[in-house]
Amino acid sequence: MYPKSFKKLIDHFASLPSVGPKMAERLVLFLFKQDSAKLKDFSESLADLKNLHTCQKCFNIAEGTLCEICKNKQREQKTICVVEDPLDIISIEKTGIYKGLYHVLGGVVLFGNGNQDLKIKELLKRVEEEKVEEIILAVNPTTEGDATALYLKSKLKDFNVKITRLARGLSTGGDIEYADEITLSSALTNRREIT
Amino acid sequence: MYPKSFKKLIDHFASLPSVGPKMAERLVLFLFKQDSAKLKDFSESLADLKNLHTCQKCFNIAEGTLCEICKNKQREQKTICVVEDPLDIISIEKTGIYKGLYHVLGGVVLFGNGNQDLKIKELLKRVEEEKVEEIILAVNPTTEGDATALYLKSKLKDFNVKITRLARGLSTGGDIEYADEITLSSALTNRREIT
Repeated sequence: MYPKSFKKLIDHFASLPSVGPKMAERLVLFLFKQDSAKLKDFSESLADLKNLHTCQKCFNIAEGTLCEICKNKQREQKTICVVEDPLDIISIEKTGIYKGLYHVLGGVVLFGNGNQDLKIKELLKRVEEEKVEEIILAVNPTTEGDATALYLKSKLKDFNVKITRLARGLSTGGDIEYADEITLSSALTNRREIT
Repeated sequence: MYPKSFKKLIDHFASLPSVGPKMAERLVLFLFKQDSAKLKDFSESLADLKNLHTCQKCFNIAEGTLCEICKNKQREQKTICVVEDPLDIISIEKTGIYKGLYHVLGGVVLFGNGNQDLKIKELLKRVEEEKVEEIILAVNPTTEGDATALYLKSKLKDFNVKITRLARGLSTGGDIEYADEITLSSALTNRREIT
């Protein structure tokens, strides 16, 4: 029907999350129409991915053994922000507000599961060895995130470290009328005096 | 924030149609977690795309000068099915009903535009040189598709060739209640006797 190499590339695209077979076909047809320089560059970038590693300290994506953030001695070394995956770091870095370090858990705590894949042991080791004063649990505001936060809090209780979570409330630009009850409850409970 | 090669690959994915920057990040993170053999294969398939050409006869995707369909002498040589792009060929081939040849137009006729990119001249040449008996205009059932069909019909009127279009009516599995008026009108006009 169509050349094998075309079919193979469609299959590769279709194996990506949120890309269905029809979308994969459209993507490959789009790429087929691009000039070969762009295609070559795309292909090389893809191959280069295997030269990336996970940071040995915080498990963020890194070019060498340590990521850019861990290598940067200007960052505040006393705070660790715990996130589920590296994309969360990107979002938090975009705010420009946070100056501390990170720790990528690699997922959420699931009960009835050993949670062996999560970098919890490594987090505890860092808290023990580095002079950490605050752990910010930047897990998602979901049931799984809540469970993970509680679990980590219990693991961290013997360390002399402040544990915080991101505030919950209304999204900026959101609409009270359409806010769900739980969010609105949080926004009321955590209301702040205007100064 | 993140390694350059990671950012570059995100940009490549974000340049694809229907892929936004957030989705591109998620795709690249997904790929980062895949084993390197799969990544290598993906990258090579992508590079291989530039070895594909358009068929010199019908403008379908081809590995050599002619596509698999044009090379296949078993196909009925008297019928040409005109489609907008190569993905339409894939869909029609999947039905297994059509045994003739194709001709990829490369788009639709737009007025006030020279339509130089469309392979109309090449189609007329084929009709003249090959023993074509029927042209099936498999353009999309849209305003642009209708305009293209009318335009092609006017160009083909001097040739002794039957010109047909795909039937319009209800989609199989569809619901009369939710069919739009135009589709329902077509379905009524083109109703068939049950034999």
